[in-house]
Amino acid sequence: MAATVPFSFLRNYWPLLSASSRPFVVKAHNLNFSKFVVPLQCRRLPFSASASNNEQAAAKAAAVNANSGAPTIFDKIINKEIPSSIVYEDEKVLAFRDISPQAPVHVLVIPKFRDGLTELGKAEARHGEILGELLHAAKIVAEKEGILDGFRVVINSGPTACQSVYHLHLHVLGGRQMNWPPG
Amino acid sequence: MAATVPFSFLRNYWPLLSASSRPFVVKAHNLNFSKFVVPLQCRRLPFSASASNNEQAAAKAAAVNANSGAPTIFDKIINKEIPSSIVYEDEKVLAFRDISPQAPVHVLVIPKFRDGLTELGKAEARHGEILGELLHAAKIVAEKEGILDGFRVVINSGPTACQSVYHLHLHVLGGRQMNWPPG
Repeated sequence: MAATVPFSFLRNYWPLLSASSRPFVVKAHNLNFSKFVVPLQCRRLPFSASASNNEQAAAKAAAVNANSGAPTIFDKIINKEIPSSIVYEDEKVLAFRDISPQAPVHVLVIPKFRDGLTELGKAEARHGEILGELLHAAKIVAEKEGILDGFRVVINSGPTACQSVYHLHLHVLGGRQMNWPPG
Repeated sequence: MAATVPFSFLRNYWPLLSASSRPFVVKAHNLNFSKFVVPLQCRRLPFSASASNNEQAAAKAAAVNANSGAPTIFDKIINKEIPSSIVYEDEKVLAFRDISPQAPVHVLVIPKFRDGLTELGKAEARHGEILGELLHAAKIVAEKEGILDGFRVVINSGPTACQSVYHLHLHVLGGRQMNWPPG
């Protein structure tokens, strides 16, 4: 059943459901959905500081198993089991629109084969080639989206950086004036 | 004379000086200092929206010659003509602390040889190797700085993304909870 639930629902509303009203606990665990419990501090939702802290703690707790090797929602997207709006694809890289965009253009760039790269913090020298291809793909995405005049690439690694899916992904944002600091 | 002016002064205070009080115009032009006229919108300084817009326009104007191939302040840092707080260095990569940190840890990672990479938007397939090494170096920096539990990598490309120096650089930020959206 979980596989038929829109990604947007899971990503946007999962943290808002009480534990008792989450119908996909087992499936969610299998798919690493626990990572969608993103710190609310990362989302600018009108929740209290207490709730924010609770979610932040939950995210940190969820991150304990972040590198267990469990599949994530991105595996379903790569396998086209969950639809996504694909912007670019080649043998090694997939780029698709973020369902919770933070700018007029907001695309995620991921390696099709995770190869241990649950997060950038797990990168080793042997990953150099795919890391380079991901950054080059980010440029290709910017070109395709018409934002070469200004775009920002962001990689979150770990819970305090707001990483929500433990499959390395690059955010490519543009189409508006970006601000500083970057979050 | 410009070479003896602290990087921090130029980067932090250059935009605040009136045109008539900027003593390093010629030198600054040679060193691509015009790129330090960062949009104030990128800096969260208590200026009016009008001033912000003016600076934003100035930044866009400055970016016209961004890819002229002129040296930047980073060349002086690479050559150790201007001091910096180096965190990591190898044959191809240099990482040093940002003088205007936006987090307890804020390090810039740059290629020693720019090779046309004034910005990520200029990346070509041939740059794959150095791009991969830069991202791997970002991970090494995070490890050295003790922020592997959570760090964010940011690359600004072009004026609307707040790029202030036209020599590709990765920002590595951590040591605090990062927020969302990323600027």
